[in-house]
Amino acid sequence: MEIVSRWTAFGGEQLVCRHTSSATGTPMTLGVFVPPQALETPCPVLTYLSGLTCTHANVMEKGEYRQAAAELGIVVVCPDTSPRGEDVADDEAYDLGQGAGFYVDATEAPWAPHFRMRTYVEEELPALIRANFNVAADRQSIFGHSMGGHGALTVALRNPDRYRSVSAFAPIVAPSQVPWGVKAFSEYLGEDPAAWRRHDAVALIEDGARVPEILVDQGESDSFVITELRPELLVKACEDAGIALTLRMQQGYDHSYYFISTFMAEHIAWHAERLA
Amino acid sequence: MEIVSRWTAFGGEQLVCRHTSSATGTPMTLGVFVPPQALETPCPVLTYLSGLTCTHANVMEKGEYRQAAAELGIVVVCPDTSPRGEDVADDEAYDLGQGAGFYVDATEAPWAPHFRMRTYVEEELPALIRANFNVAADRQSIFGHSMGGHGALTVALRNPDRYRSVSAFAPIVAPSQVPWGVKAFSEYLGEDPAAWRRHDAVALIEDGARVPEILVDQGESDSFVITELRPELLVKACEDAGIALTLRMQQGYDHSYYFISTFMAEHIAWHAERLA
Repeated sequence: MEIVSRWTAFGGEQLVCRHTSSATGTPMTLGVFVPPQALETPCPVLTYLSGLTCTHANVMEKGEYRQAAAELGIVVVCPDTSPRGEDVADDEAYDLGQGAGFYVDATEAPWAPHFRMRTYVEEELPALIRANFNVAADRQSIFGHSMGGHGALTVALRNPDRYRSVSAFAPIVAPSQVPWGVKAFSEYLGEDPAAWRRHDAVALIEDGARVPEILVDQGESDSFVITELRPELLVKACEDAGIALTLRMQQGYDHSYYFISTFMAEHIAWHAERLA
Repeated sequence: MEIVSRWTAFGGEQLVCRHTSSATGTPMTLGVFVPPQALETPCPVLTYLSGLTCTHANVMEKGEYRQAAAELGIVVVCPDTSPRGEDVADDEAYDLGQGAGFYVDATEAPWAPHFRMRTYVEEELPALIRANFNVAADRQSIFGHSMGGHGALTVALRNPDRYRSVSAFAPIVAPSQVPWGVKAFSEYLGEDPAAWRRHDAVALIEDGARVPEILVDQGESDSFVITELRPELLVKACEDAGIALTLRMQQGYDHSYYFISTFMAEHIAWHAERLA
């Protein structure tokens, strides 16, 4: 793992790292914030999964997570949203291909060779962080935004023993039922919706996956809420399953990092309590 | 004044505004954060001047000022760093022309017609804000970064009756004595250094300008500190003049927004005390 950039911030270090991923077969870039506490003691890890069109850099520049992470001693890991490169399949649409990996392992052409973001996030990334940073291996949590909220929820629901907590900003809760997800899953996973259920938070819960609790913030003025995000489907699934969902509808807020940054510190504090 | 964009953030509103400037003769874009308190009561104004290459957007996206401004009820105004446009003079260098206005009124060709950032920031901008927002006209302060730190210091030193307080991140304290400033001032103000002194914080202090106190944060690992920023010249000038300068050399920090954002809340709190 190569450190590409390094900045002191809030008493810790914001790094940009690059490594060759065995999961995707490509170089992958990620942001890692190392709080000052990591100089002395193993720190818990909170992974943030970004949304469509984002790289590792969006949340690093606009997410305003460092102050809370430094105060609470949390390593914040911010991977990219897909493999990238000239030899990697892509599509001109913003919601498919590079920048739109949807945190699945693609089974279909032309995506299958590199679009393996599920394995990357679930398996390779935690191991990479453990091998390179002073972290407490048994204390990790995950959160994300929009497509990354979908990623966080599905990763946590599939691995409740490995993630202490999960939260999301404006997540795509049921990709199998909305245009973004139907388009991406058809391309990445094929036309049979049965293959999509392990990559859909609502379907996972319907099929028996459980986490004890979920925190979600959703902007009421988010233009994607009705068509793509559909928090009511998560409410229903959690009610039926007995999962303690805290869904906070935030008046006036949209889908942007102005929304995310506003509630970022509260999410980090919420995770920190569960990572203690 | 036109509102180009509007986002809810930290309970207030982050706006991007555009207006036709009488000072520069061009459209000018600025960021304005309106805290929730402004719905009910006139709020003080804190103007942030950005550095070389920046637009209004850099600090808006990376500066992390909204949380503190919302808590303390401060309107934060973030203008652009120069006039812009196809009909506006420019230079291919990053440190001259568009993006590098240096907060002076240019007297020389080809800059004089539009590069009037001193009048813009000192005169037009406060009037624009008073006319369009619920602000307390007698309570304004100013701060900035690098070239914008130079701007903030010189604006405040020339107008101590109009600004309650001034602070800076890594300011160019003596542009007349460093390459960035000599280049820009020669172009904008002509070759006679006598004309530069009203645009140079150290020279202004030497010539009798006074503010009661100044807060400066300077990264120790800032690659520009020795050649361009030279905080020791401000220390000397303030000592000789009896100005209470608090210069905090910050170990490990560079010239980036990772540095600025780390100390942003402290600067806003410092100004808020003086704006109360």
